[in-house]
Amino acid sequence: MLEDLLVPALTEFSKSRKAFPADAIYYQPTHGREPLRLAVTNYLEDLLDLDDSNGSLDPEGIVVGAGCNAVLENLCVSLAEPGQGVMIPLPYYAAFEFDLGSRAGLEVIPVPTMEYSGCSSISDDDSSPSPNAYYLTRAALDAAKEKSINDLGIEPRILLISHPQNPLGICYPPHVIKETIDWCRENKIHLISDEIYAGSVYRKDTADFSSALKLASSSSSASTSSDKGLGLGPYVHLVYALSKDFALSGLRVGVLYSENQEIRLPLQKLNDLCSVSSQTQLLVEDMMTAKSSSSSSSSMTSWTNEFLEENQRRIRQRGDAWQSCLNELDIPHLNGTAGLFCWMDFSKFLPKEGTAGERERKLYLELLQDYGLLFTPGDSMKNELPGFFRCVFTAASDHEFDLGMERLKKFVHDKRA
Amino acid sequence: MLEDLLVPALTEFSKSRKAFPADAIYYQPTHGREPLRLAVTNYLEDLLDLDDSNGSLDPEGIVVGAGCNAVLENLCVSLAEPGQGVMIPLPYYAAFEFDLGSRAGLEVIPVPTMEYSGCSSISDDDSSPSPNAYYLTRAALDAAKEKSINDLGIEPRILLISHPQNPLGICYPPHVIKETIDWCRENKIHLISDEIYAGSVYRKDTADFSSALKLASSSSSASTSSDKGLGLGPYVHLVYALSKDFALSGLRVGVLYSENQEIRLPLQKLNDLCSVSSQTQLLVEDMMTAKSSSSSSSSMTSWTNEFLEENQRRIRQRGDAWQSCLNELDIPHLNGTAGLFCWMDFSKFLPKEGTAGERERKLYLELLQDYGLLFTPGDSMKNELPGFFRCVFTAASDHEFDLGMERLKKFVHDKRA
Repeated sequence: MLEDLLVPALTEFSKSRKAFPADAIYYQPTHGREPLRLAVTNYLEDLLDLDDSNGSLDPEGIVVGAGCNAVLENLCVSLAEPGQGVMIPLPYYAAFEFDLGSRAGLEVIPVPTMEYSGCSSISDDDSSPSPNAYYLTRAALDAAKEKSINDLGIEPRILLISHPQNPLGICYPPHVIKETIDWCRENKIHLISDEIYAGSVYRKDTADFSSALKLASSSSSASTSSDKGLGLGPYVHLVYALSKDFALSGLRVGVLYSENQEIRLPLQKLNDLCSVSSQTQLLVEDMMTAKSSSSSSSSMTSWTNEFLEENQRRIRQRGDAWQSCLNELDIPHLNGTAGLFCWMDFSKFLPKEGTAGERERKLYLELLQDYGLLFTPGDSMKNELPGFFRCVFTAASDHEFDLGMERLKKFVHDKRA
Repeated sequence: MLEDLLVPALTEFSKSRKAFPADAIYYQPTHGREPLRLAVTNYLEDLLDLDDSNGSLDPEGIVVGAGCNAVLENLCVSLAEPGQGVMIPLPYYAAFEFDLGSRAGLEVIPVPTMEYSGCSSISDDDSSPSPNAYYLTRAALDAAKEKSINDLGIEPRILLISHPQNPLGICYPPHVIKETIDWCRENKIHLISDEIYAGSVYRKDTADFSSALKLASSSSSASTSSDKGLGLGPYVHLVYALSKDFALSGLRVGVLYSENQEIRLPLQKLNDLCSVSSQTQLLVEDMMTAKSSSSSSSSMTSWTNEFLEENQRRIRQRGDAWQSCLNELDIPHLNGTAGLFCWMDFSKFLPKEGTAGERERKLYLELLQDYGLLFTPGDSMKNELPGFFRCVFTAASDHEFDLGMERLKKFVHDKRA
């Protein structure tokens, strides 16, 4: 639903240089061309709302690689040994298991949150969990770490959070992120904040999004303000990519940022195994430094800002329509503020017979086969309760989207008949 | 020394499409866009001289990834477990150790050849080893395998050959490759033929280059001629890239080819971690299907063929000049036929004192610091004898190249003074 914006823009950026730069023919710095890393630095500072009080990103801490999965893998390879653990709060993006396990040999340690959230949601069958139920707490982190070491014999080295959260479609509030950062530093566990949806916060008023980089910086920047960087220290890292906020998954451009000096050289070396084509580095550099063509010369806005605002408007439109539909049908869901999806509680439609997994699977197949509705089942994301589904509401044409709402209404109508 | 050809061509290919194709915005097939894989298929069939009697490459066996190192790593990950061994004949490209060890956790098992070559070169101090001394033999392969298992406790799973050979600058003759293929099949060890210099065979008359794919196919294609592919069976694989023959190292485009069905899906999945930007896939597709602008319409030749021929002419010119200089100075060397380098025997200039490694290191530093000559020392490539160096004769301007010859003459003159 963004091709009308992307095709002309990419066409223009692809042709903006008179000639293919001779220096782009040969090997590039393995972590990315310097002008690109500078452009990424400026872009991320703007996106993540980093200001002078936070310090500024160090372009040498940026690594541009062939996709978020690629840079994430290398970051984890640099921080942990095969067989060690990566803690991930539930529910989580299922592909993390492949990305971290296949070559890096790392184990995913799920971090359940509900029991420690102070919510009564699990015991109370009639109410759906509030956002609180999914927030990280010290108690949840301690319990997951302890279980990993004592029951599984796996040493956790990394905590990977998705923020804004996929599949929940919400952001962890600043106090949760702050507590998480503190816990990681105290426990010498590396926090990787995957902020790939940071530009897809479409309800800025209620999202309360604050980057882990911003929150990790403010506490320590005063003491290191003369140095480059945000004063993150060794335990806080970021990954980002163009595949979600810009829908440019075909370009395979991921970014990581770290101020940990010990892994800087290994990261740059490892990135040689997943570098981005120089041609595409030039394209992204041009994209990230372009001014909006529609803005007046007196108040130039960047192309990326203009694009993200329009994208957020479109996501919001879809998200609002979908949530209205859910409200109308009395289907509990989280009030999404970010990302391209809505987290829905279909537990009241679960069949009565079978294990939790079987019941959800049956409902999933019924939705898919009988109603033509494809949702991501919570079980595939290790959700703690059965009957939850993620709806990606952007991956459809307007017509398909309308059809989806009709089908959902029919499903609910049939169920309640 | 190719920018005069590459800059205009890449500029043209980059701008040849009216608009950025909408379908290139999003995720692509992880092993590469189909039109690109078809273009690569045709290109490789031509490059490797595969004809109807060999069968034809199966486009589904092609994987296009972010560089030769990236596809090689994934191929090895698919064929072997961490801790198992990759046999590599001596001397070898030093970066293989990083590429195979860093994430895949594979061990490099050197394969010495000289003792088994039937050459008297090692015992006879006055003569330099002939090409024969470096050829693989069954005896050398058996000995290396046995040593790996019995002495090192490492199970060899893969034999990786560089063909044309880097750093030797020559090709293994067909009978050597055939014997190697047979040995691999008998021993159930996977042969990976790295033919990244296949388009840089600049002395076609004497090189006697024949691709391992061609030689592995002819023996079995008759029985499987109705199937797609060359009938390679599970044990023969190829890697290739654009970074040498086209000097396009900045584009990070590597290719692997395998007809092993068991690793097809794993390879496609793993390649998601090192995919090539869709934009660059389009560029390479356009490049590989372009017709030469200078050819008449009645006899169209491809742009790639025209480029490679001109490149080979330039390499030949440099290679001839360098070898003439070596002959004049009575420095033994292999008569190079392929690649961008010459393998030189400086053993008579080795200082007398110290271990073999120390003596070579001293000579290396003398050449570098006192004469401004940077050669790759054989020791870094695990060469069996000290005092051998690789000269990359293309990575210099004409002026620098002339200067290099002058400096070498001065070095020899000083030594013989």
